[in-house]
Amino acid sequence: MTVTFPAPGSHDELEEGQRLTPKFDRDGLVGAIVTDVETGDVLMFAHMNAEALAATIETGVAHFFSRSRGKLWRKGETSGHEMSVAEMRVDCDQDALWLRVRVAGTGAACHTGRKSCFYRAVPTGEVGAPLRLVDDARLFDPAKTYGG
Amino acid sequence: MTVTFPAPGSHDELEEGQRLTPKFDRDGLVGAIVTDVETGDVLMFAHMNAEALAATIETGVAHFFSRSRGKLWRKGETSGHEMSVAEMRVDCDQDALWLRVRVAGTGAACHTGRKSCFYRAVPTGEVGAPLRLVDDARLFDPAKTYGG
Repeated sequence: MTVTFPAPGSHDELEEGQRLTPKFDRDGLVGAIVTDVETGDVLMFAHMNAEALAATIETGVAHFFSRSRGKLWRKGETSGHEMSVAEMRVDCDQDALWLRVRVAGTGAACHTGRKSCFYRAVPTGEVGAPLRLVDDARLFDPAKTYGG
Repeated sequence: MTVTFPAPGSHDELEEGQRLTPKFDRDGLVGAIVTDVETGDVLMFAHMNAEALAATIETGVAHFFSRSRGKLWRKGETSGHEMSVAEMRVDCDQDALWLRVRVAGTGAACHTGRKSCFYRAVPTGEVGAPLRLVDDARLFDPAKTYGG
């Protein structure tokens, strides 16, 4: 499936216009921030190509482009953790998206079994200080789900 | 200033370890999601190189790498909208950061004068539907602040 979006227009159209004209990078991707619509927590960060973005808009279910597998990826297709999009937004220069979602199944977004991919804090003050684990709860067993 | 972080180790060290070993892309950048520590709203998305990441850790104030200007960028250096980092997190594969911040001055994060860069919603259902403006409040006048 070949999907195209209009090319970005003028600076003013890009920032103040009503047309979605994503600024895909040289790999054809835009970044997508995913937050939990209930808690506001950031769950994950992934990338979309034009096909994934179009599939997300058409279905209301989050699709990404898997850089490691080089193909369209309907989030949750293996684990059952589909993401229903409550709201999607685009930023000023249209090179990033923000999806507010409800996660199906256990509610986990991370392939490690945790709710969020952002389970470690980076202390400020000194470069090199150890990361601090802030969420170690596993909502599913990755070995069982992905065939470990 | 040359700043280096340790290179990523094994898959398990990267995901479960306590060492910050960012996976910089071929341009030497990692993505940084910025949310408001009070409301949880996503304010902006930007990039950090090693120098910006180190400066953020050392000072507790958000620094990025400006891709358009090709240099270190202390957010707010022109507008006064500095971002104090309440908490920083790193994701499972260490190629994205999440900063929860307090914004100084008017509290605006976007160069258009709005609080968040994500002021337009992308309706789901049909590709090509017009974007919907969800926040048009300007907290400052960009022309005055940046000398427009």
